[in-house]
Amino acid sequence: MKTESDTVELGAFDFECGAEIPSLEVAYEAYGEFDGDNAVLVCHALTGSQNVAGYGTETAGQARAWWNDIVGPGKAIDTNEYYVVCANVPGSCYGTTGPASESPDGEPYGTDFPPVTIGDWTRAQRRLLDELGVGRLHAVVGGSVGGMNALDWVRRYPDDVRYLLAVATAGRLDPQCLALDAIARRSITTDPNWNGGDYYDSEPPDDGLALARQLGHVMYLSKSSMERKFGRRAAGRDARRDSFPADPAASFFAYRDVESYLDYQAEKFVDRFDANSYLYLTRAMDDYDLAEGYEDDADAVAAFEGEALLLSFTGDWHFTTEQAESLAESFRDTSVPVAHHVIESDHGHDAFLVEPEKVGPPVRDFLDAGVAGRSVHDTVEEVEEPSVERDFAPVHTSLFSR
Amino acid sequence: MKTESDTVELGAFDFECGAEIPSLEVAYEAYGEFDGDNAVLVCHALTGSQNVAGYGTETAGQARAWWNDIVGPGKAIDTNEYYVVCANVPGSCYGTTGPASESPDGEPYGTDFPPVTIGDWTRAQRRLLDELGVGRLHAVVGGSVGGMNALDWVRRYPDDVRYLLAVATAGRLDPQCLALDAIARRSITTDPNWNGGDYYDSEPPDDGLALARQLGHVMYLSKSSMERKFGRRAAGRDARRDSFPADPAASFFAYRDVESYLDYQAEKFVDRFDANSYLYLTRAMDDYDLAEGYEDDADAVAAFEGEALLLSFTGDWHFTTEQAESLAESFRDTSVPVAHHVIESDHGHDAFLVEPEKVGPPVRDFLDAGVAGRSVHDTVEEVEEPSVERDFAPVHTSLFSR
Repeated sequence: MKTESDTVELGAFDFECGAEIPSLEVAYEAYGEFDGDNAVLVCHALTGSQNVAGYGTETAGQARAWWNDIVGPGKAIDTNEYYVVCANVPGSCYGTTGPASESPDGEPYGTDFPPVTIGDWTRAQRRLLDELGVGRLHAVVGGSVGGMNALDWVRRYPDDVRYLLAVATAGRLDPQCLALDAIARRSITTDPNWNGGDYYDSEPPDDGLALARQLGHVMYLSKSSMERKFGRRAAGRDARRDSFPADPAASFFAYRDVESYLDYQAEKFVDRFDANSYLYLTRAMDDYDLAEGYEDDADAVAAFEGEALLLSFTGDWHFTTEQAESLAESFRDTSVPVAHHVIESDHGHDAFLVEPEKVGPPVRDFLDAGVAGRSVHDTVEEVEEPSVERDFAPVHTSLFSR
Repeated sequence: MKTESDTVELGAFDFECGAEIPSLEVAYEAYGEFDGDNAVLVCHALTGSQNVAGYGTETAGQARAWWNDIVGPGKAIDTNEYYVVCANVPGSCYGTTGPASESPDGEPYGTDFPPVTIGDWTRAQRRLLDELGVGRLHAVVGGSVGGMNALDWVRRYPDDVRYLLAVATAGRLDPQCLALDAIARRSITTDPNWNGGDYYDSEPPDDGLALARQLGHVMYLSKSSMERKFGRRAAGRDARRDSFPADPAASFFAYRDVESYLDYQAEKFVDRFDANSYLYLTRAMDDYDLAEGYEDDADAVAAFEGEALLLSFTGDWHFTTEQAESLAESFRDTSVPVAHHVIESDHGHDAFLVEPEKVGPPVRDFLDAGVAGRSVHDTVEEVEEPSVERDFAPVHTSLFSR
C-alpha cells in the first residue's frame, strides 16, 4: 500500500475567532492511490492523530493506528480502492500547529494560540486537500468529535461530499457532557504546573491532565462495560497505586481494578498529549452546534445532496442513539437519502473503535453503494417490517414507523 | 415541637479497621417526644448533617434542613408522632469527631484519623441511641449512602429494627461510580494545598474539593434534568466565570449555565465541608458491600424479621432502580415483607430530596402500616394488577409477575 506521511505548510491561516497566524502546518497521512474520484477523508477523534491505519509516523498510545481494524488493504475502508486521507487538526499536538508549536517569536504559542473551532478544522482540511489536488470527496468519515467535523463538512462544503458517514456523534453535546468537559478543563487549569499555559520549559500539569483523561475514560465506557471489565475487583497488583498522592487511610481499602485501569490510562496519556491542546480541543467540541447560524439542523444540512449514514451504539451515553436519530430526522427532512444504523453494543462510546466486526460491514457497503448498501440498516426501515396486520390492512407506512 | 440539638461524648471508640480513638463525640438532633416505641433513626447522605428538619444547629448549604419537606410536624415523617433522631457520622465535619477534630495531642487529626466504614457509623449510632435510652427502633430510614447505613442496621442489629426504609440506594456502588469517586478523591489529593491532609493551619485544598463536588453534582443529576435545567444556554451573567483559573481562549466561548451552576455549588460547598472528610466518607461509601462476610445479599439480611420498603427513582444513575430491585429480590428470598416502590422522576439521584410530593405518601404510609400501607406500591404487585385474563383464568400469581 502506498503511504504518505508528511507535513504541509499552508501559509497564513485566519481562524473563525478573527485571529490569524502567519503559518499553519498540517500533518497528515494518506493511504492508497488517488484516481481523481476516490478520496475519503477520515476525521480523527479528540485525542486522535493522522495515524489512522498504523503506517507512517510513530505516535503513541491510542493515537497510533487508532482505526487499523477498519482502514487498510482489504478492510472496510479499503485502501486498495480508496485514497484515504487523515489530517491532525489545528490545536492538536501531533505535528499540526497548536499551542505547543513554536510561534513567530521563537517561543511556544501556549495560550496565545488562537481559540480553535471545528470549523477551523474543516477549513484547514479543505486547504490541505487543495494542496493534494483533491476536489470532491467520495466520502467524509468521522467518529465522536470527528463525526461533528464530518457534519461540518456537509454544512460548509455541501458540494464537495458524495457520502457522509458520521459515527457515534451528535449535532451538539448535551449539558451533562459539557459539565464533565468543563470539570476536566478545570482539573488542568487548577494544576499549579499549568501556570496559565506556560509550562513548556518546566514541569507540565500532568496531574491535571491525568484527571481530565480519567474523566474521559469514564465517558467512553458504559455502566455495563465497566461492570464486565472491572466489577468491584481489587487490582491484582498495587504497582500503580502510588501514581497519585493518596490519603494514608487509603491503604486500609482495596485498590480496585477500575482505579488501576484509570491510572494506567492516565499515565500513558500524559506522555503523549499536551495539556493546552486538551483545553483547546475540548473547547472546540463543546462549542460545536450544527444548527448555529441556521434555523435548525435540517436547515444546516439542506444544501447537501449526497447520501448520509449515521452509526450509533446502544451503550453510548457520550453520544447517544437518540442524538443520532435526531440527526437522521434532520436529513430525512431534507429528502437526502439517509440511514441511521444502530449497533447493539454495551461497549459505550468506545464501541466505534473496538467493535470492528459490527462497524465494518455497514461502513464498507455504504462507501460502495450508499444507503442502499446491503449491510446498511435504518431505524425507520426496521419498524416498517411487513407484519400480519399490514398484509391484511395496508396503511400509510409512516403510521407504522411511529 | 420539642427539639434537641446536642453533642454526646461516647468515650473510647474502636473502629472496624482496628484503630481506636480515646473519645468519640457524636453530634445529633432529635425532634418530637420519645414514648418508648416510636423512635425513627434517619441516616444522612454523604455531605449531609444531623440537621434534617431545619431546627436547632446552624449548618450551611445542603447540609441544613436537608429533608425539611419530609420530616416535621404533620409531615410524612411526622414529628408529632415519632421521635426522630439524626446523628452526624464519624469522619464528617458537623460536630461528630472526624479528621478536622482535635486529637489528644491538641492538633487536628488530619489523616491520622482512622479509616472509617459505614459499619462504624452504625455502631456509633447504636451507642448514641443507648445514651438516649432508645432500644428498638420503630424505623431506620436513609437515602443514598444513608440508605447503605440503614441497610447496615438490619444486617448488624436485625432485632433492633421494625421497619427499614432505604431510599435511592444499593447494596454496593457499581464500578462507574467507584471510578468517579476515585477521580474526585484524586482531585483533592493532587491539590498541593491538600499537603498530605495537613492544611488546617494554611490554605485548604479548595480547588480540589470544588472539583470533587462538581463531579458529585453531575452524579446527582440526570441527562434529562440537566437538559431541562441548563440546556446549552449561556449564563445570564459572567460573575462566577473567574472562580477558577481559565485558559485565555475561554473568553471566546460561552460561559454556560451549567458551568455557572457547578461553580456556584462548588463555591458554597468549600465553605461548609472539610476536604479530608470528603476523602474519608467517599472511602466508606465505596467500600460498603452489603454481602461482605455473607454468602450474598439475601444471606446478609436473613436475620431481619421486620418489613422493608425500597424507594428508587427512574432517572437515578448513581443508585439505579435495577440495584434497588436486586435488593428487593434479596429481601423476597428471606420472606420478609418487602416492597420496591419505583418513582417516575427525571430528577436523577436528587429526586429523593426534591420530589417530596412523590416521596412523602409511601414514606408516611409505610411508617404507619408497613408494606400494607395504602400508598406503598411494589414492582411485583404492579404487574399483578387484576386483568381480564386473570378474572377468567386465574393462575399462580408468580406467573403474572414474570
